[in-house]
Parts: sequence; C-alpha cells; structure tokens
Amino acid sequence: MDEKKFMALAIELAEKGRGKVNPNPLVGAVIVKDGEVIGRGYHEEYGRAHAEVNAINSSKKSLCGSTMYVTLEPCCHQGTNSPCTEAIIKSGISEVVVGTLDPNPIVAGKGVGILKAKGINVKVGFLEEECKELIKIFSHYIKTKTPYVTMKYAMTMDGKIATKTNKSKWITGDEARENVHKTRGEYAGIMVGINTVVNDDPMLTCRLEGFYNPIRIICDTNLILSLDSKIVRTARKVRTIIATCNRDLKKQREYINLGCEILVTDMKDGHINLSQLMKKLGEMKIDSILLEGGGTLNWSALEGGIVKSLQVYIAPKLFGGLHGISPIRGDGVSDPINSIKLSPPTVKYFGSDILLESEVLF
Amino acid sequence: MDEKKFMALAIELAEKGRGKVNPNPLVGAVIVKDGEVIGRGYHEEYGRAHAEVNAINSSKKSLCGSTMYVTLEPCCHQGTNSPCTEAIIKSGISEVVVGTLDPNPIVAGKGVGILKAKGINVKVGFLEEECKELIKIFSHYIKTKTPYVTMKYAMTMDGKIATKTNKSKWITGDEARENVHKTRGEYAGIMVGINTVVNDDPMLTCRLEGFYNPIRIICDTNLILSLDSKIVRTARKVRTIIATCNRDLKKQREYINLGCEILVTDMKDGHINLSQLMKKLGEMKIDSILLEGGGTLNWSALEGGIVKSLQVYIAPKLFGGLHGISPIRGDGVSDPINSIKLSPPTVKYFGSDILLESEVLF
Repeated sequence: MDEKKFMALAIELAEKGRGKVNPNPLVGAVIVKDGEVIGRGYHEEYGRAHAEVNAINSSKKSLCGSTMYVTLEPCCHQGTNSPCTEAIIKSGISEVVVGTLDPNPIVAGKGVGILKAKGINVKVGFLEEECKELIKIFSHYIKTKTPYVTMKYAMTMDGKIATKTNKSKWITGDEARENVHKTRGEYAGIMVGINTVVNDDPMLTCRLEGFYNPIRIICDTNLILSLDSKIVRTARKVRTIIATCNRDLKKQREYINLGCEILVTDMKDGHINLSQLMKKLGEMKIDSILLEGGGTLNWSALEGGIVKSLQVYIAPKLFGGLHGISPIRGDGVSDPINSIKLSPPTVKYFGSDILLESEVLF
Repeated sequence: MDEKKFMALAIELAEKGRGKVNPNPLVGAVIVKDGEVIGRGYHEEYGRAHAEVNAINSSKKSLCGSTMYVTLEPCCHQGTNSPCTEAIIKSGISEVVVGTLDPNPIVAGKGVGILKAKGINVKVGFLEEECKELIKIFSHYIKTKTPYVTMKYAMTMDGKIATKTNKSKWITGDEARENVHKTRGEYAGIMVGINTVVNDDPMLTCRLEGFYNPIRIICDTNLILSLDSKIVRTARKVRTIIATCNRDLKKQREYINLGCEILVTDMKDGHINLSQLMKKLGEMKIDSILLEGGGTLNWSALEGGIVKSLQVYIAPKLFGGLHGISPIRGDGVSDPINSIKLSPPTVKYFGSDILLESEVLF
C-alpha cells in the first residue's frame, strides 16, 4: 500500500515540471528509508538537473539502504547532465522502483541493467499506466521526432465554434477559458491558421502566472499575415514562427525584421505540407503543439495524420444556423464508415461547461 | 433513513409506468407497518387504477395504523377512477407521506386537506426533488396544456448529424441506439420533419418489448409525404398524424384513406405554426414529444419556444466537412449573447458514446 503512495507522490512531483521541461520527459523521484520520505525531486526545467539527482541532493540524511521510487527509468547517457545511474550508485541507495522503462527503444532497459550490475535491487513497472501517461508526449516525440499534436476547440451543444457572422466571444465560461490558458502553458507550441488570425487578431499567449508562453506557430500558406497584427507586433517578446509556402525572401524579411521566424514548406493540396512542417518543428525541439486552428486547418491536420488527441469543450448553449461555423470543415468524409475514430472520451467539468478528451485511433 | 428507502421504492415503482400512463402522472405508493412493506402499487396504465388503490389492494394485511409513502399528492376528484383520498380514508391508513403536491395549482393541497380533515397525519415534501422530476412531463402538460418536447439528436464530436452526402448510419453504437428506442417508448409522440422522412424513410417505432410505440407526427407543410413511405404504409398499425398547411381536402383524403390523421395549422414564416400545432396535440392528450427532426425543424422548434429539453448523443468520431450536416440549422443567432441557453448538462455513458441532457432555460 505504502509503495503506491510513494510512487503516486513521485508522479505528483513530476507533474510540476509540465510545460517547463520540453522536450525532456516529466520525471519525479522520491527516496524512502524505514517507511519515511527522506528525499524528493523532479525535473524542474529543461537543461537543469534530473529528478533523481534533485531527490538525492534534497536529502539531509544518509541514503544507505534506502529505496528510490522514480517514475521513469534513470538515464545512463552523458547529456547536459551526467548519467543519473552514476548518481544513484554513488548515493548508497540499495533499491530502485521504476515506474516504466525509457520509451526510447534504443536505450530502454540500459539504465536498469547498469543499476542491477552494481548490485542494486531494481523493480520495473510500478503504477506503470500512470507513469506512461505522464510521458505521453515524450514517448511520442522520442519515437517519431515530431510534436504530439492536440486539437482543441470549444463548441456549442449544437456543434458550432462561431455564429454565422463568425462571432465566438464567448462560447465557454471563465473556468473553461482559464483551463485553456493553463493548457497552453503546458505545450511547447500553439498553432493556428491564418484565418483565425485575420478574424480574431489573437495573442495566443498563456495568461497565467508560473507558466511559459508556448511558441506561436501560424500556418500562412501565402504569407498574408498583417504586419500590424498583435502577433507580429509582439513577436520580439513571444517567440513566433510563421510557416509558409511563399519563398519570396523580400517578403519574408519584413516579418523577420519584426522578430518572427519563417519556416518554408512545400505545398500540398494548395496548403502547407503539415507532415513536413511537423518534421521541421520536431527538429527545433518542439515536442508538443496545441492546435487551435479553425475548421479548414483542423481538417487538413486530421487528414495529414498529424493529430494525436482532441480536447473538445462543450458549452450548454445553442447557436443554430445553416451558416453557423463547424469545428472541422474541409472536405470531410462521405460515409460514416470512413469517419475518423476516437477513443471513448473522458469527461471533465469546468463551471457549466464540459471538456471531452479523446485520442485519435489510427 | 428507512423513510427515504420507502419513498425511493415508491419512486422506483412509479417509473414502471413510464410511457404507459400518459397524459397521467407517474405515481408510486408503498404501505409500511411496523417497519415492514405490506403494500406496493403504481399507476400502471392510463385509464386503470391509481397507485394508491393498487398499493391498498396489494396488501393481504390490515392497514390500520400503517403509513403510506406516495410520490404525488393523492387525488380528490372523481375522474375515470374514484378519488384516492376516499380509498385511503376507508383503508385505515393513519399516516401519509407525500413526495410533492399536485402541480396543478387548482387542486394542489386539496387532497392533503381532505386527509387531514379526517384525522390522518400527513407529511408533505419528502424526497421532493426526485418526486418532482418524476412528474416533470405531467407538470408541464397540466400547466400549459401542450406537450413537453425533448429535442434529440446524435452527433459526432465535431458536431455533425450526417456526412456531406447526408449519410448518418450509424453515428452512435448499439447501446446508445437501444436507449433511443427505450426513450421513444416513454414519450407519447415522436415528431420529425418531412426532410427526415424523404432522406431516411424511417419507421420511428420503439423496437423494444414492453413499450408502446409513440404516435408518429410528421411535419409536412406542403403535404408531399410519399404514400409509399414506410410510415404511411404502416399507419394502420402505428398511429400517425401528419401536420400540414395544405388544406386540399382531396389530397388529404389520400392519406386518411391509408390510416393517417391530418392536422392542419396556419402557416408561419413559410412553415407549420408549431405553437398552434402543440396546442392541438395537447388537446389530443399528447403530453410529451420526442423531437427527432432534422436541422431545419429543430431550429423552427427552438425559435418557436416549444422545446423544453435536449438529449444530445455524442459519438467518439469525426466526419469533418464544410458541407457536413449540423444538428440545428435554420437562421441561427448572429451574436453569442443571443444564444439559446441550456442548463449544465448531465452526462450518461452508453458504450463508447455519451449522452448530454440539458433543459432549455427561458
């Protein structure tokens, strides 16, 4: 029973790094001796110490004969930091309980092997489901080298994200909107289509304290984004990437001069090649993207197979309207048999609104 | 504690009459003596005995000094049956616990008054919330003389009730579809628009044993329903009402000859005047309607103010499509401020699908 409590605490600690460690995994660690927690740590920020080392350093007591509960297999390679396996061996910890193995097939099991070789007792796969959920984004990124994309939209109970006159302020209430800001702070990037910027002139920032702003990614096939838009005007403060197919260097220079970055992709069906874009963003260490695009971009993203999960906020109101705006537009499927399948949604409540979360089934 | 259990049992019994007692209320009754249930009954079918009388008759023991738990105030007027107050007084029951008073303001409190005048101890308002919920439809009907209308639709997680080619088979899974059939059996009528009949040629029956078929009501402004449709061809077996603005008696006769009933209303904005239709259906003792109309009828019904609640099934799949079909079409609102407001939805699970239920806030 206690063992579960210790790992649950490690998971809780790991969560604190959300939005700050990308593209590293969230990791938490707890050190226990004689049933008492004597050390705790988590990976707090990209480039800084790992959870295991933070837990070891946090303890004022001798770790000899203690047990470490760590959500993810300790690393054994020299990166920004020295290997965690080394620090564990040196510390005198005699047992390590690992939530789940490294999802990177190239290194999975190696850290555990090194610990075992040094006579440390190692248990693997403890609260594994929860520990895997914790590194969902990392697992995806490490295997595909592309960002984990979550499509998010807020709609009425009759499936509209805006009225026929394109008005959408507001569909959901305060609690749901605050949660969107929190979520933005947890993703490395936020992506929208040019139409959304033209219609709403949004900031796309995270307005909550203690969170970082995600990198803003604007899909703008023809590079028509207004230099006067809020996004361009704040590009020196909040990192902004414009993805485009327009190769006119002089035109690009106008945006670059104002602090934007330009990413050029090939064209696909008259739009940005999103798979190519994801590869480029992955190379830039962007491991996760919250897609808040309008209906056209949403369909392209689904069709392009880049979407991993959905967050759908539903507000208890109705807009009606033959010309009301639907969250996913584009071509769409002709037969229900060919629909895009999702996992059964989990339900969360925010004030009067609900949030459905599903994964795209491939 | 036990008292709650007895009333909960009465509520459970009352539920058994759902779909069979319209336009009467659902009522359940339990008789308790020395902590033991010695009688139970419910209103089983329209025109047959009331719950109180069934409970009294069910008991083999003397009721002297016993307590009756009844979900609704006993009636005191001579209707199809003699007054329940009379039967209670005669039975020797010494205490009556009433869930909620009769919602009809003209008679509310009268039954209780008669019992008290005869020296019976009466408590009113026990598990009142639940007992009021039980007679939601009756309360609406008795006050307005019009049916309680629930709008029902099934949509994808991107708010589509059909693909761009108008295909909708199937959006939800077996469990959800079975629940729709159960729900149909609980309403006095089921209403659709002519477009739904033209597109789907449905039967609109309840395919579950132990339930009645609802009366089928087709809104067909111009009377273009095919005489060869399944609905017309089965009108002799399942009661069918065609609401129309077409006053051509010869044309109407064609449907009447095949067993349909014709209800003529004035025209409103080029459509059937739905408020007028509801009044006429109310006069025909139809106390509740499940509206399974397409997007156009749905909007007219909302705009006409005849919709009391919504049942929205959501399936974990996506159709996409600029031309995908939305559940509520028509004009729609221009500004979110003018949206039709709903109560926070309750969530139920059917297989992979969910059901959101809300009331329309006026």
